[in-house]
Amino acid sequence: MTFSVTILGSSSALPTPNRFSTAQVINLLERFFLVDCGEGTQIQLRRYKIKYARIHHVFISHLHGDHFLGIFGFISSQNLLGRKNTLHIYGPQKLKELIDQFISTFDKGIAYELIFHSLSYKTTELIYEDDKLTIKSIPLRHRIPTCGFLFEEKPRLRHIKGEVIQELGIPVKNILSIKQGADYISNDGKIYTNDKLTSDPLPSRSYAFISDTAKKPGIIPIINGVDLLYHEATFADEKKKRAKETGHSTSRQAAEIAQAAGVGKLILGHFSHRYKTLDGLLNEAKEVFPNTELVYDGVVYNIPDKK
Amino acid sequence: MTFSVTILGSSSALPTPNRFSTAQVINLLERFFLVDCGEGTQIQLRRYKIKYARIHHVFISHLHGDHFLGIFGFISSQNLLGRKNTLHIYGPQKLKELIDQFISTFDKGIAYELIFHSLSYKTTELIYEDDKLTIKSIPLRHRIPTCGFLFEEKPRLRHIKGEVIQELGIPVKNILSIKQGADYISNDGKIYTNDKLTSDPLPSRSYAFISDTAKKPGIIPIINGVDLLYHEATFADEKKKRAKETGHSTSRQAAEIAQAAGVGKLILGHFSHRYKTLDGLLNEAKEVFPNTELVYDGVVYNIPDKK
Repeated sequence: MTFSVTILGSSSALPTPNRFSTAQVINLLERFFLVDCGEGTQIQLRRYKIKYARIHHVFISHLHGDHFLGIFGFISSQNLLGRKNTLHIYGPQKLKELIDQFISTFDKGIAYELIFHSLSYKTTELIYEDDKLTIKSIPLRHRIPTCGFLFEEKPRLRHIKGEVIQELGIPVKNILSIKQGADYISNDGKIYTNDKLTSDPLPSRSYAFISDTAKKPGIIPIINGVDLLYHEATFADEKKKRAKETGHSTSRQAAEIAQAAGVGKLILGHFSHRYKTLDGLLNEAKEVFPNTELVYDGVVYNIPDKK
Repeated sequence: MTFSVTILGSSSALPTPNRFSTAQVINLLERFFLVDCGEGTQIQLRRYKIKYARIHHVFISHLHGDHFLGIFGFISSQNLLGRKNTLHIYGPQKLKELIDQFISTFDKGIAYELIFHSLSYKTTELIYEDDKLTIKSIPLRHRIPTCGFLFEEKPRLRHIKGEVIQELGIPVKNILSIKQGADYISNDGKIYTNDKLTSDPLPSRSYAFISDTAKKPGIIPIINGVDLLYHEATFADEKKKRAKETGHSTSRQAAEIAQAAGVGKLILGHFSHRYKTLDGLLNEAKEVFPNTELVYDGVVYNIPDKK
């Protein structure tokens, strides 16, 4: 039951050969979502062998170049590679204009359907839902309208007690409703309550991506208890003033949010290129929230089932 | 007297981790020119340690994504890095619209001057000139308006014969005019003709970049005798038909152009990603024009002085 986050880029404003601009791929039960799409994202997708025809949904946190400039090459290369599937892009309305302008330069437009979903960036919205998961936006505090994203598995079906089902000879056609919580009434009218037939399912898992933001305690209830939290950490603590001015966080502030929200694990990215070594940022975060890691491009974070 | 070409990207439509999209930097006597600007060009500039504040002129061959999508990140990062110098961009008028749209998303516009020069793509134009060199456009045969670029050193000043100058005691104030070809008349009225005072200067050097094009013999007189020719070579010979249909060249056709134009050396790039190995393309070219090389990202081609 895969739930993973692959980091494609983790630099801040300026990409470097070792850290591309922000982008990551979420694989939730073999459904693939691209979150942000900085310059060179298509190169990173190829480098890390992610089949990008499988990505049907792209979410853009905000309209700063390091978070969206790769979308044009992504759209164009998908076209050259003969994509057939619809591509959904979620972002600010202005991005739609830029994409439309870009596509107008193509010889023959694009051969697949592209659907743009305009986000409000003002309130938390349910922006995607299917049978297995939901994705919500999380408004942040940056210089321009910006949001993060919350990926949540839906509650799973109850776990069938195989040996009981077999013993009672319950027909296959009843299994789904029992998994959903129904009782079972046998042919002779006897009622077997659901708790005899099933046990609790494994808990659902969740991931939150917190893009560019000044420290914003208002997000704590929204991301409360997520298994994995990616929080931007552009600066070290001594640049706290600069962080606030530019709408960014220090690594310590990210850890304070993680701590207050009781998350499982914190991963930090979006580092200012001024830092030659990131040990200071990591240590400052770990003093507050020990289960913290720095991300690197190409690293995959798995969110395992909770036993 | 540096004259060099640094390859930043040499893939065709689809960039890969080993070959970025088309871009190269020309260093002609410490004046730096960027030719094409595919996605990730700013990353390559940083990887190969080219100070991009020194680039004042960017030339875009045509409006296919793999030749211009890096311009947005380039413009934006220059702004973040505090660029003060004017940036000149040469390309199709439509590119100006895309750039203007992009800049309109910035919080505060850009802090340096950006001057756009619209190219015709119809005839060879002198598009840049200073005291040392000229740059001309070379219209090509592609699916959309496309041109290559010809970089030529201006004729150098004549070479002073130091010992003669010393013997005759010619004053410093006369030296420049003598270098320019003037005779010298001594105080006693004696005329020393220029050929006694100078020898021929070293010949001027030249470089031509031939971007996407079907084979176009019409360019031969324009690039005649260049020291270094970069010619696109998207396909092997057996894809000649496909090359023509898509407005591209085979490596053999590139070599035929090089041969007919009597160039010094041919370098090939813009390879289709279908080729796992490029030996075939190289061999087919070398059969026609032996002094041929395949380019690789990061390689610098020097054009030495001709002794």
